[in-house]
Amino acid sequence: MTKTRWLVAGTALFAAAVAAQAEEKADPKKDAMKYRQAAMTLIGANFKPMGAMVKGDAPFNAQEFARRSKDVAAISSIDLLAAFPQDSDGTGSKAKPEIWMKWDDFKKKMGDMERETAKLAEVSKGGDMAAVKKQFGETGKTCKSCHDDYKE
Amino acid sequence: MTKTRWLVAGTALFAAAVAAQAEEKADPKKDAMKYRQAAMTLIGANFKPMGAMVKGDAPFNAQEFARRSKDVAAISSIDLLAAFPQDSDGTGSKAKPEIWMKWDDFKKKMGDMERETAKLAEVSKGGDMAAVKKQFGETGKTCKSCHDDYKE
Repeated sequence: MTKTRWLVAGTALFAAAVAAQAEEKADPKKDAMKYRQAAMTLIGANFKPMGAMVKGDAPFNAQEFARRSKDVAAISSIDLLAAFPQDSDGTGSKAKPEIWMKWDDFKKKMGDMERETAKLAEVSKGGDMAAVKKQFGETGKTCKSCHDDYKE
Repeated sequence: MTKTRWLVAGTALFAAAVAAQAEEKADPKKDAMKYRQAAMTLIGANFKPMGAMVKGDAPFNAQEFARRSKDVAAISSIDLLAAFPQDSDGTGSKAKPEIWMKWDDFKKKMGDMERETAKLAEVSKGGDMAAVKKQFGETGKTCKSCHDDYKE
């Protein structure tokens, strides 16, 4: 290798090392995005098959529905507001800046989700399909209401 | 464009469409990996700052510790076993095949985590640093015991 080639190779290695370190550096906003997205993954993965059962696209399995709604309520009970630090929108996130402009409303809507998912878990224990269907609708409304206003 | 070029372009488009469709196709094993990894992300993101407080690397904030341990218990209470369908190891997962070879032991260890995280949430309410420290250790042991045997 010529001296120039060594220099180029060395610089490239150094740049890669710096990039790797930068990636490892704590980034509270990225961590917060990852946290809330993980929670939404868990909620969505349960909500989807529950929706299929309610809509009749899948056979209604009362035991599975009750288990999933209990788990959705558990996940909704965690402190998700802490995963929305000020201005943690931008690349890699679908959070709208309106979240921090209307924080009280956002907080209220998060509370609505927690309350309605808890009700759904309770209703699901009974296995009464009509009651479950109704409460699933009420719960879905709280998801939609928040996503409409605060998710891109 | 020549006929050959049209053919090549058409084939490339078709291949891209097939690939896109394959990606969208339901893959229960990949979904399961994503689910359990999301749950572990949530648990780990809480456990790390709790560990720092217990080790004295960060000031002990009783209120934050109680909130985090409540959330860890909530996440540990969801049905994580359902996210380990038979042989869902392999690419993208650190799950060891031993999980399905020693399913009863794996199940027991998952139960240990749920029990000890619930105890930690309970003890944390009191804010007694020594008791919290002890129970944090007991809880951490259940994580380690399962990871040692079943996580690559």
